[in-house]
Amino acid sequence: MGTTFKDRTAIVGIGWTEYSRASGKSTLHLADEACKKAIEDSGLRVRDIDGVVTFNVNDSVSPQWVAASLGLPELRYHLERWGGGTSAPAMVADAAMAVACGLADNVVVFRSMNGRSGRRPGGSGEHPAPRGEDQFLIPYGWTSFVHACAIFARRHMVLYGTRPEHFGAVTIAARKHGALNERAQLRKPITMQDYLNSRMVADPFRLLDICLETDGACAVVVTSAERARNLKHRPVYIMAAAMGGGPKVSGFSPNTAGFLRTPSHGDTYAKYVAPHLFGMAGIAPKDVDVAELYDEMTFATIFQLEDYGFCKKGEGGPFVEGGRIELGGELPVNTHGGFLSEGYIHGLNHVVEAVQQLRGEAGLRQVKDAEIALSTGVGLTVGGALLLRR
Amino acid sequence: MGTTFKDRTAIVGIGWTEYSRASGKSTLHLADEACKKAIEDSGLRVRDIDGVVTFNVNDSVSPQWVAASLGLPELRYHLERWGGGTSAPAMVADAAMAVACGLADNVVVFRSMNGRSGRRPGGSGEHPAPRGEDQFLIPYGWTSFVHACAIFARRHMVLYGTRPEHFGAVTIAARKHGALNERAQLRKPITMQDYLNSRMVADPFRLLDICLETDGACAVVVTSAERARNLKHRPVYIMAAAMGGGPKVSGFSPNTAGFLRTPSHGDTYAKYVAPHLFGMAGIAPKDVDVAELYDEMTFATIFQLEDYGFCKKGEGGPFVEGGRIELGGELPVNTHGGFLSEGYIHGLNHVVEAVQQLRGEAGLRQVKDAEIALSTGVGLTVGGALLLRR
Repeated sequence: MGTTFKDRTAIVGIGWTEYSRASGKSTLHLADEACKKAIEDSGLRVRDIDGVVTFNVNDSVSPQWVAASLGLPELRYHLERWGGGTSAPAMVADAAMAVACGLADNVVVFRSMNGRSGRRPGGSGEHPAPRGEDQFLIPYGWTSFVHACAIFARRHMVLYGTRPEHFGAVTIAARKHGALNERAQLRKPITMQDYLNSRMVADPFRLLDICLETDGACAVVVTSAERARNLKHRPVYIMAAAMGGGPKVSGFSPNTAGFLRTPSHGDTYAKYVAPHLFGMAGIAPKDVDVAELYDEMTFATIFQLEDYGFCKKGEGGPFVEGGRIELGGELPVNTHGGFLSEGYIHGLNHVVEAVQQLRGEAGLRQVKDAEIALSTGVGLTVGGALLLRR
Repeated sequence: MGTTFKDRTAIVGIGWTEYSRASGKSTLHLADEACKKAIEDSGLRVRDIDGVVTFNVNDSVSPQWVAASLGLPELRYHLERWGGGTSAPAMVADAAMAVACGLADNVVVFRSMNGRSGRRPGGSGEHPAPRGEDQFLIPYGWTSFVHACAIFARRHMVLYGTRPEHFGAVTIAARKHGALNERAQLRKPITMQDYLNSRMVADPFRLLDICLETDGACAVVVTSAERARNLKHRPVYIMAAAMGGGPKVSGFSPNTAGFLRTPSHGDTYAKYVAPHLFGMAGIAPKDVDVAELYDEMTFATIFQLEDYGFCKKGEGGPFVEGGRIELGGELPVNTHGGFLSEGYIHGLNHVVEAVQQLRGEAGLRQVKDAEIALSTGVGLTVGGALLLRR
């Protein structure tokens, strides 16, 4: 067709609940609170909202229920996207397309979970009998995403000399940023020794490599670029979105052989996503001022820096050294503290932070003159990303 | 924005597996077969496909697995939409938006299920403990969609004088059409006496009011209008799509009082969906040549005829009399036999039939000169629909 939705839609509102280890509230309650705050923040009225989008892995609430809870007069676009870490950017893209194509005017996009006190996405706990690939993996102890990533990370260490101290640098940066973020759960800075002393959970991952299971919800409001210009805040335009992957990298194939091939190929699905993403936006990685990279494990930050083109393959470890990904560094990464410090709201909290940065409202953790932000999602078999600009 | 995707995309391929009561095949196998047939039918090559969309209610397979099974070189748009009967039109809309917005070029959309021999969507069987509204409904015996619809149907009978013979006319028409459809599972025509003699399942629904739980899969390929013009078949353009509902009708509100209010208000979500649908297409109900109406129960056909504007509220019963919805009648409905005769592939089989009709390839059951088709989906709390044209 030649046409895309580049810059035709914008994020105009953001909202979040407290992020905690035991909310004591239902996912419906949390979703309602985050959505209402995002709508209030946008300057739109609740009755202007006609689309509700979320994602769910059997741990959350349906858009229809949230529409009812909000009291919307009408629901014109509703989407409950099934899936994990790749879904936050993907569902923002879905909302943008619904607006760009006239299926809805103003869409609220949320993720709500009691990931610590309730159902744990991707973790152990209340699960049906394993099906598909899981039946071959779980008997060998591969029961969660941490185990899967551990194998990738170890292979990266073998191939490229990536060291525990590289992982440590990622979590130290996250904590440093989280200390400046009122939403963050872990606000105490840590040292490399703290990191190295933390107990091993799934070799090579220590406790401090792994995201914080969290209760909470956040939300963003997507509308047309035209409407965005007359609302409360400076619009944050959705420049581009991309998602997916390819057959020769990171799963996508439902067999373990293909899955394990990833690190030896050296690339992840980000290699597929990046050209479409930067191509739609018409910019290059060097134009990105701040990167909110899905960081369920420290290693994810490292491989994404490589595969989104911020450094060469295998150089992600050295790239995170020397404060390069910290505030004031060459490329500030996860300025909210990411999953490692703020909490695991499954990637939509990365979008919220990107919007705050581009509005210039990030306070002590503000990246000076941030104009363009990358926000990503990571799944086992596919990935997704957004480019936003002020 | 003022822009929509009207006529910018088309369905260019259709495929289906055998519809049976015990496929003996996995949902992955069935999906792969239906998708390959749809791609083959389109004239595209498998390697041209870069998007895979489906919906799932914990009874099917993920798009990523099907992408791998097909051997796609790259996946650029993937969506696993969570939900029930409203999802078939909604996911065709999602695919159309992805193509219209440049996120993918050629998207295969499938629904695969072992709804008879495996997991039954919306029925009893393997289920987690009831949550949300269900915990208040299930103790009173309201365990499936049949029970929910029974209450709506009974209310319609009380308010408007709708009679069992009206329901019977719907299922008689479906069987008559199914007899002409090589895909249909029940191909023996029935009489009104057969209908009235069939055993009561959930008053006022008899066995012959209720859809056929089915094993099978079907698929359609969506591409841009430009590409469609150079492919194998006459393109079937996606004129319009709409989905959703409102607060004063049919659920949408997670409380039983709101839910039961529906029939007394007299309207369903179709009243909300219809203006957007016909508005985007720029046509009126009278322009529709053939209607493939989601018919999980006979009653659904009746309320949709009313609420999509083919007759007045309360006149759906009389409307289906006298062969009006049969081939050769004023508005042929469910020319494939629908869920009542062909089988329950959750509404995507209605889209397949609409495409066959608009191509003029429906053989003995062809609606003469069919130019515009309506294909719908029905959920408990929201609905959706497509308008297609040749």
